[in-house]
Amino acid sequence: MNKYSKLHRVGVVGFRGYSGAELLRLLGHHPGVDIFLLEHRSETERRHGPLGAQPKKSIPATAEAAVREKLSVVFLATPAEVSMELASAFLDKGIKVIDLSGAFRLNDLDTYARWHHEPHTAPELLGEAVYGLPEFNREAIRTARLVANPGCYPTAANLAIRPLVEAEVIDRSRGIVCDAKSGVSGAGRKPTLKTSFCEVTDNFSAYSILKHRHVPEVLQTSVIGEREFTFVAQLLPIDRGILETIHIRVQRIKQAVELLAIYEDRYENEPFVRLYAPGSVPDLHAVSRTNFCDIGFVFDVDSQRVVIVSAIDNLVKGAAGQAVQNMNLMLDFPETEALL
Amino acid sequence: MNKYSKLHRVGVVGFRGYSGAELLRLLGHHPGVDIFLLEHRSETERRHGPLGAQPKKSIPATAEAAVREKLSVVFLATPAEVSMELASAFLDKGIKVIDLSGAFRLNDLDTYARWHHEPHTAPELLGEAVYGLPEFNREAIRTARLVANPGCYPTAANLAIRPLVEAEVIDRSRGIVCDAKSGVSGAGRKPTLKTSFCEVTDNFSAYSILKHRHVPEVLQTSVIGEREFTFVAQLLPIDRGILETIHIRVQRIKQAVELLAIYEDRYENEPFVRLYAPGSVPDLHAVSRTNFCDIGFVFDVDSQRVVIVSAIDNLVKGAAGQAVQNMNLMLDFPETEALL
Amino acid sequence: MNKYSKLHRVGVVGFRGYSGAELLRLLGHHPGVDIFLLEHRSETERRHGPLGAQPKKSIPATAEAAVREKLSVVFLATPAEVSMELASAFLDKGIKVIDLSGAFRLNDLDTYARWHHEPHTAPELLGEAVYGLPEFNREAIRTARLVANPGCYPTAANLAIRPLVEAEVIDRSRGIVCDAKSGVSGAGRKPTLKTSFCEVTDNFSAYSILKHRHVPEVLQTSVIGEREFTFVAQLLPIDRGILETIHIRVQRIKQAVELLAIYEDRYENEPFVRLYAPGSVPDLHAVSRTNFCDIGFVFDVDSQRVVIVSAIDNLVKGAAGQAVQNMNLMLDFPETEALL
Amino acid sequence: MNKYSKLHRVGVVGFRGYSGAELLRLLGHHPGVDIFLLEHRSETERRHGPLGAQPKKSIPATAEAAVREKLSVVFLATPAEVSMELASAFLDKGIKVIDLSGAFRLNDLDTYARWHHEPHTAPELLGEAVYGLPEFNREAIRTARLVANPGCYPTAANLAIRPLVEAEVIDRSRGIVCDAKSGVSGAGRKPTLKTSFCEVTDNFSAYSILKHRHVPEVLQTSVIGEREFTFVAQLLPIDRGILETIHIRVQRIKQAVELLAIYEDRYENEPFVRLYAPGSVPDLHAVSRTNFCDIGFVFDVDSQRVVIVSAIDNLVKGAAGQAVQNMNLMLDFPETEALL
Repeated sequence: MNKYSKLHRVGVVGFRGYSGAELLRLLGHHPGVDIFLLEHRSETERRHGPLGAQPKKSIPATAEAAVREKLSVVFLATPAEVSMELASAFLDKGIKVIDLSGAFRLNDLDTYARWHHEPHTAPELLGEAVYGLPEFNREAIRTARLVANPGCYPTAANLAIRPLVEAEVIDRSRGIVCDAKSGVSGAGRKPTLKTSFCEVTDNFSAYSILKHRHVPEVLQTSVIGEREFTFVAQLLPIDRGILETIHIRVQRIKQAVELLAIYEDRYENEPFVRLYAPGSVPDLHAVSRTNFCDIGFVFDVDSQRVVIVSAIDNLVKGAAGQAVQNMNLMLDFPETEALL
Repeated sequence: MNKYSKLHRVGVVGFRGYSGAELLRLLGHHPGVDIFLLEHRSETERRHGPLGAQPKKSIPATAEAAVREKLSVVFLATPAEVSMELASAFLDKGIKVIDLSGAFRLNDLDTYARWHHEPHTAPELLGEAVYGLPEFNREAIRTARLVANPGCYPTAANLAIRPLVEAEVIDRSRGIVCDAKSGVSGAGRKPTLKTSFCEVTDNFSAYSILKHRHVPEVLQTSVIGEREFTFVAQLLPIDRGILETIHIRVQRIKQAVELLAIYEDRYENEPFVRLYAPGSVPDLHAVSRTNFCDIGFVFDVDSQRVVIVSAIDNLVKGAAGQAVQNMNLMLDFPETEALL
Repeated sequence: MNKYSKLHRVGVVGFRGYSGAELLRLLGHHPGVDIFLLEHRSETERRHGPLGAQPKKSIPATAEAAVREKLSVVFLATPAEVSMELASAFLDKGIKVIDLSGAFRLNDLDTYARWHHEPHTAPELLGEAVYGLPEFNREAIRTARLVANPGCYPTAANLAIRPLVEAEVIDRSRGIVCDAKSGVSGAGRKPTLKTSFCEVTDNFSAYSILKHRHVPEVLQTSVIGEREFTFVAQLLPIDRGILETIHIRVQRIKQAVELLAIYEDRYENEPFVRLYAPGSVPDLHAVSRTNFCDIGFVFDVDSQRVVIVSAIDNLVKGAAGQAVQNMNLMLDFPETEALL
Repeated sequence: MNKYSKLHRVGVVGFRGYSGAELLRLLGHHPGVDIFLLEHRSETERRHGPLGAQPKKSIPATAEAAVREKLSVVFLATPAEVSMELASAFLDKGIKVIDLSGAFRLNDLDTYARWHHEPHTAPELLGEAVYGLPEFNREAIRTARLVANPGCYPTAANLAIRPLVEAEVIDRSRGIVCDAKSGVSGAGRKPTLKTSFCEVTDNFSAYSILKHRHVPEVLQTSVIGEREFTFVAQLLPIDRGILETIHIRVQRIKQAVELLAIYEDRYENEPFVRLYAPGSVPDLHAVSRTNFCDIGFVFDVDSQRVVIVSAIDNLVKGAAGQAVQNMNLMLDFPETEALL
């Protein structure tokens, strides 16, 4: 009765974190997969909950266990250092890996070390990791063994900026300013003072100004220079959502519809990018709990200024949703399965 | 030019916590005191802030340092185990102590051990500690060496319940239900998963049902039995404020004004208790950042039911504000100084 | 390819409100229905949004238009006075009606007039309206023409209380106290000062104490007397979710599992009621955006006190989700379709 | 016993709004004034509250009543159209006016009409109105009859930008981007869908992009051109606070301390501007419920980029606090009275 004759078995490491929990939620609606929880550390945390809930299958987060259970894909919803430690063992056994950390997104070791402030411990994998932004890398993802799922901030930034860079309409001498705001779940589930309720509520704060580790991911993907790109990360008193306000100057644009046409050409068949009429921009509610990236802009012809607003749900298109989109491509499911 | 000819020197241990920070804020508006920060542990936390701010005087949290600086009073805004460890040394040197923890509020050792799940380590002080609820204990506080500042939940509960108990209008066979809701700052500043932003926002949860350690403080103060008093603590997704909805049945009350009269008689000269017209009740905004306890109720004559709402700011009347009120009594300042 | 050979056409009046929007969201995942927007007033509101979104079919909210489009069911997500005005015309044309307002929930005209402070304008329909709480009324719902979808507060209350009333374990002489807390969406989408952001945020307030119009719906369904049942509605600074803390005394219960067994017997085959182990209770996150009602309790054998916590999402099990559950029963779909 | 031998009588029109309520709160701590509520419309709103609160003196909002009561100053916490209607009558009777609306901030009629989309109805007053930003206009304010209290967004922007413009270090060919975020109270107390709780919570949205009516106030005060200055206003899900992230390029700056020195020179004696060490920036908690404007920045020498963060409480330094600061100057009180 299921629409797929064969189920793929997929595993999730780090399922207790916010991205991991969102993965379980989305995969739970996917008719083509059978989910396994991969226990990495002997975690004793018990979330109390209703009686009689169907227990998920739980196995150790080892390649051996994964082979034994015939997993097709393993998601690593883990910190970068854990992903670097775990990835190759799964790959060596022929199990595909989708990594949600920042471990394999940059293709240059020095850049990694400089922005992450520590050396990379699995450099041999950087060469083959495919950057999992389907809108720009779809075919490579289909055949990849290792997909580096993009960062949340870079997903919203690259989808908004790269079409205009490719179309060569940006006056790059004026720079690109990306003023980004994120919900707190992007910082992970581990308790810290910075993410404590009383510190965040009724507050708004900027952090890692000009130094955020997601910056090189935008530079590499949209092919822009470090001095051109100003990025500020800021913490919103909400749990989920990223909205980026991007300030650029263009050249030789006479009407807003010319800019819209660039986006439309680029994204006309994309299921998860939605465009707004010029002068209209998305808010966070528009994308909450969806895999959409919504993009709108305001254009002033006299000054050639463009203010672009790009919005995603950081846990969906910015993490778990995009990971499922990548899995769909890798396992030959319809790309939107479980995501609409 | 100062209205007081002589300044009292006062010290605060635990000034980095939420209650401690509120103490510094309130004492900063008190024209009669000179504030010292008492460093208990070698804490390295630095809160960045504006340049050139006047540094507060900082000394070790020892009785010796306190004597050297001629402190009159030390506030302990510390966990109970730290308060039990520190209090006697200050007292031995003739320095008064106002303790904001639960260490000295109960006068029975067994009750303490049972509700706190650990033995008391300074039992010799229980006898002399004065429960610092000025509305019911004003004269004893004036001459106390050691004041046990009341808990936040018990302050709102006792002020609402005790006048009716004393007036003997409650049908005690029907029980007293106190359904209490608190902001997150009541749980302290130490990061925990339970007080993380993403766990608290958009949520509401009950905890320590029937077992909250503040229960015996209400029983002892309002002289009611454990089986009579049902208490549920619940966490609101806000940083500060306590609102308690108290459900009782009365007997032989013909009109709401009879109940109001009981409260009015009891609180007519109290500067920090405000009453509402029958049928009208306070919300949290009414008391936010004030030292008031606001009390209102709704009465149904047919069923003799009364629903009482009692609201305070847990960091002010529920902690730091009441502590300053107690200090004002102990040092012979006007009771409302720095609090209106 | 669709799992249902025939689609039912369903219409929604009041789709711009919060319950109506939630209905559209849920019905959008239902493979067996084709959705029509029924425009009741000439509303000009335009929500800006992405370009190229598939427009929903929009027709006037009249029985004629509904007949022309061959609708099977119409949902009225409208105020009670609008529901009373519209319902009979649809019914007369053989179109089933699921009404989400309070118009048809009470079977007594005087009770309606007394609690709603205005007379009922469609009294002829009260007799045939079926109260749409599937857990207690499933068979009648299947064949009903007009279903009165339960109120949000009563859904959480009745599911928690009625099994214990039926099992005759409550000491009814002690009364039943239901201290209820709700998110703001329960108040509807029309702007008011009371539901303005600055009035609600950082606040918590009680309203309609002992006089809430949902009270008679609990009395009628759980068969309890008005003087027995104390209900307080309170506003949480969140958008969705209801949590009710219910305080009762039982008699002759020796162990918590006896109470659990009562619930388990009653709900063993219910897909949308989840029970917790004694001593454990749900929070709002557990039910957010689901059609579940989660119920847990704490029992104290000595005093025979029970504190029950019942939680739902007010827009799902408390409104749109339960309405879809009722539609599934009325149109012979699997009861959980679009709801898990 | 009061520190001032003579009290000034001051009146507030619009005291029910958020700025008006904040004015009452601040003036309530001012030992030199006696407060009158000026009733403009026959408003029937009654905020329930505690019994026995001292009623404020209430008179009609007319020049005659103000003369009869010998008011020195009237605050207009009213919409611009009401301020334009009321101001001259008070001024004609010799009563000073501090207007919190946008009515008198711009000195050019055409600019007003263009950004406010309606003509000015009291143009004769534009010439004498003094822009009430004490840090740049102190002496004129002291002797002004009519002070135009600055807008909330412009206060934070001008204090951050103007020193660098005056010092001629900004590369103005690169433009100035001000990405501003505000709490909801800035939109006023009148209920609207846009400021409803459920629309704002868990959300973040940009509005009036490039067209906000506060823009010309920054251009006029900091002497920058419209095409140079990009301003985006955005709504935070909090009640109060403004944080502006300002992106500029400078020229010929070798070290961050050179920029700091510019600010320090400009603000060394300013009681309400606080500077941060280079690399450190304020968050909203730092200025909440204070009259401070906190300014910090991050500088990258290679690219000459500067990211400035300027934070205020929109109801205090952005409205009522600055109005009291202006009143202190106009009535010859110490400038910080009631504000520290």
